[in-house]
Amino acid sequence: MIKTPYQDLEDRFRRLDAVGGALSMLHWDMSAMMPSGGVDSRSEQLAVLTSIRHAMITDPALPDLLDGAEADQHLDPWQQANVAEMRRQWVHSAAVDADLVEALSRAASKCETIWRTARAESDFKAVLPSLEEVLNLTRQEAEAKADKLGVSPYDALLDQYEPGGRAADIDEVFAHLGDFLPGFLDDVLAKQACGTAILPLQGPFPAAKQKALGQTFMTALGFDFDHGRLDESHHPFCGGTYDDVRLTTRYDEADFTSALMGVLHETGHALYDQGLPKAWRGQPVGSDRGMSIHESQSLLIEMQACRSREFLEYAAPLLRDTFGGSGAAWEVDNLTRLYTKVEKGFIRVDADEVTYPAHVILRFQLERAAIAGDLQMADLPGAWNEGLQKILGITPPTDREGCLQDIHWYDGAWGYFPTYTLGAMTAAQLFAKAKSDRPDILPSIARGDFAPLLGWLRERVHAKGCSLSTRNLIATATGEPLNADHFKAHLKTRYLDS
Amino acid sequence: MIKTPYQDLEDRFRRLDAVGGALSMLHWDMSAMMPSGGVDSRSEQLAVLTSIRHAMITDPALPDLLDGAEADQHLDPWQQANVAEMRRQWVHSAAVDADLVEALSRAASKCETIWRTARAESDFKAVLPSLEEVLNLTRQEAEAKADKLGVSPYDALLDQYEPGGRAADIDEVFAHLGDFLPGFLDDVLAKQACGTAILPLQGPFPAAKQKALGQTFMTALGFDFDHGRLDESHHPFCGGTYDDVRLTTRYDEADFTSALMGVLHETGHALYDQGLPKAWRGQPVGSDRGMSIHESQSLLIEMQACRSREFLEYAAPLLRDTFGGSGAAWEVDNLTRLYTKVEKGFIRVDADEVTYPAHVILRFQLERAAIAGDLQMADLPGAWNEGLQKILGITPPTDREGCLQDIHWYDGAWGYFPTYTLGAMTAAQLFAKAKSDRPDILPSIARGDFAPLLGWLRERVHAKGCSLSTRNLIATATGEPLNADHFKAHLKTRYLDS
Repeated sequence: MIKTPYQDLEDRFRRLDAVGGALSMLHWDMSAMMPSGGVDSRSEQLAVLTSIRHAMITDPALPDLLDGAEADQHLDPWQQANVAEMRRQWVHSAAVDADLVEALSRAASKCETIWRTARAESDFKAVLPSLEEVLNLTRQEAEAKADKLGVSPYDALLDQYEPGGRAADIDEVFAHLGDFLPGFLDDVLAKQACGTAILPLQGPFPAAKQKALGQTFMTALGFDFDHGRLDESHHPFCGGTYDDVRLTTRYDEADFTSALMGVLHETGHALYDQGLPKAWRGQPVGSDRGMSIHESQSLLIEMQACRSREFLEYAAPLLRDTFGGSGAAWEVDNLTRLYTKVEKGFIRVDADEVTYPAHVILRFQLERAAIAGDLQMADLPGAWNEGLQKILGITPPTDREGCLQDIHWYDGAWGYFPTYTLGAMTAAQLFAKAKSDRPDILPSIARGDFAPLLGWLRERVHAKGCSLSTRNLIATATGEPLNADHFKAHLKTRYLDS
Repeated sequence: MIKTPYQDLEDRFRRLDAVGGALSMLHWDMSAMMPSGGVDSRSEQLAVLTSIRHAMITDPALPDLLDGAEADQHLDPWQQANVAEMRRQWVHSAAVDADLVEALSRAASKCETIWRTARAESDFKAVLPSLEEVLNLTRQEAEAKADKLGVSPYDALLDQYEPGGRAADIDEVFAHLGDFLPGFLDDVLAKQACGTAILPLQGPFPAAKQKALGQTFMTALGFDFDHGRLDESHHPFCGGTYDDVRLTTRYDEADFTSALMGVLHETGHALYDQGLPKAWRGQPVGSDRGMSIHESQSLLIEMQACRSREFLEYAAPLLRDTFGGSGAAWEVDNLTRLYTKVEKGFIRVDADEVTYPAHVILRFQLERAAIAGDLQMADLPGAWNEGLQKILGITPPTDREGCLQDIHWYDGAWGYFPTYTLGAMTAAQLFAKAKSDRPDILPSIARGDFAPLLGWLRERVHAKGCSLSTRNLIATATGEPLNADHFKAHLKTRYLDS
């Protein structure tokens, strides 16, 4: 039987998805399981599979097949969206030649591994040559893609994570937030300074108990452990495949709150992955809609749902039981104050939602300068410290708490950071609409029942895959395009009005 | 610069090795980490990577490159051996078409997963259709390879695991053992029945303590944890890559001896992998010499070294400290009796070295009949039970303790079993020669110092990669070809003369 161009493409992209899944699992293993001596052979595996995937997608038959599928009048809207995603992936891949793809994979693996030690030892110099190599290759990639996409080199990188995203639009949004947040932050800090003092939770908090508690919350939220795991890594992330979602966190036995919120955050990512349309598994259109939507799902769970008073009413008895806590420190009032505490800090992943955008704006500025060739990596620690001083008025005492804290640049993920703040705004807008559509969402969460919330997200977001653009997905789900007012309203309600 | 055919082949096989390493890691993950719901996507990943590897090795350029490299007068002996191994791999791969390779990979992944549950529930019927599918495809593979290799279908499968191995030779060896063992077993059982009764070790033995103890012994033996891990799986194995060796075991909290010996056994495999020549990493000649040599390394450590009185002198205080044991049961005399106890049992991996060959001979008979088409899988449980009754005089009460116990056939590994007993004989011969060359080996083991033994193995076996045939490797290391008398002498000394 002769395959239509569309059928042929489906077969090819199913195989591409399998290679991508293998790569994703090997990346997870590298972060969560691999002993340090495995790095050379793992880097080789990743580089070779990456180049194989690149060769598959840049097969000379692809352009004609894509043309043929785009001209096919019999495709339904999902199939059409599938072809559009195939085209998108092809444009990105075909822009870069095979040698560069393989060199970048190898450099990123090596740099990530050196970064693990460099971060632990706060030794930026140790990772500098590898980071320069990654940046150099990334800039080559950016220029090659910019040429084909007709956008700036930075936008070409951004487009990998946020399809259709452009730095000029982000500038506008960030300027808007930049006008609002400093004054707002001052107001919040002043209010919290006059409020009831937060009572500390006394540890230690054994890692095994933290893990068990995390698993309890994951289960309550709807995470399917038949299709995923929870492990540990230096940098918490959500990896694996949509059918086998691998979450990681890291435990601090003196403070469980960071690991726990990390788990809830990554669970938000995981619920999205597990909820993507099963009928489209293995096809481009069955994938997530890009990183701002992905981050909206993690932040909706972590920030919107799980720092609410209702969540803490459900969680407080579980926390007390797990850690043997008692007294006023373990009551909902104190936990709520603890979980909505605003503070200028050095670490992005530990930041509250008021100061978080400042961390993102700093990284966005720095990575744009680096890609444009205006910031040398040797100058990164100084530029970082200066930038944080300017934007938050604090200076990290060490590079570990400064430019070494995040894996992204070391692992080759440039153009990714702005999606965190776009995700935060999207999360606020989605959650506002969800609560308006389903007034039982918050009361249910107070009972540990997340089904109403998850049901809404499954229908409005997860089940769509990437059949809609980011803009249309948000508009369809909420009735309007992305609007920063929801995020501002959320912050005002939680931090000033309550 | 134009590459010579040999250089071109080295590049191609380095990439093949990377794909093979990725496959190996994904197999390890499937057994040790993967949640059950990940099986479909994992099977797809394995099938696609297997077919990619097959396409790479059956590339139309290969025959000319192999011819060219074989005609190259400038290759050194290692390079020549490397080309010979490349040729061997090519013959095996090119014999089978791509569709069959992919179908077999998919069927084996599926069957292995169903087997995990079927084994736990002793439900052979649940796995029968998948097993029939695996066998059917394996027989097609065997026939295709037999045609190209000019051997029988069974020998074609055997040759994958034991290069140059032939069933007719094994028949001879097994007949020899078959003459010796039944009478010998009776003598040993009679002797042990009259000896001092074995005192049981009282548990429970927490899994975490068993694991820590296993890691202590692994370190003492020379396992490099920068290049490997110890985890858990249904079926203990040694997987991963030579630079990142992944061992697994399974813990029984009522009895630590089985898991511990499992760890020591797999450590023997791992030491071989970690000791292969680093200069030839990623090339065929840098690989292990096949499964009988691999098994000789695990059995040399487990059976020859770690059931010796000297090992138990070193181990006894550690065992007592770990589990808080005291009294006569924990003394070296009793531990030696425990670790050299001979007993007719159902489970191969728990079998002592006297009854072990019977388990292997049974499987060898059954798998030959199955590949020849003389045994239907529906009749396997009956044939198994009848065979075990005939060979050991016992009948398993359930299929879990019978034909469901081993992963091999369900995972597509037919023709593998005889290598265990060839390995046991090789281990005895190597250990006899090592002790004769280095009389300090056993006294050192009594102090927990394995360096003299490991040094001898590294030089005589590990560092050779597969530059020599199995026969020449044994002859070079010990001064004579494989000779079953060493195994018989070892058994007599340990079980009758002591």
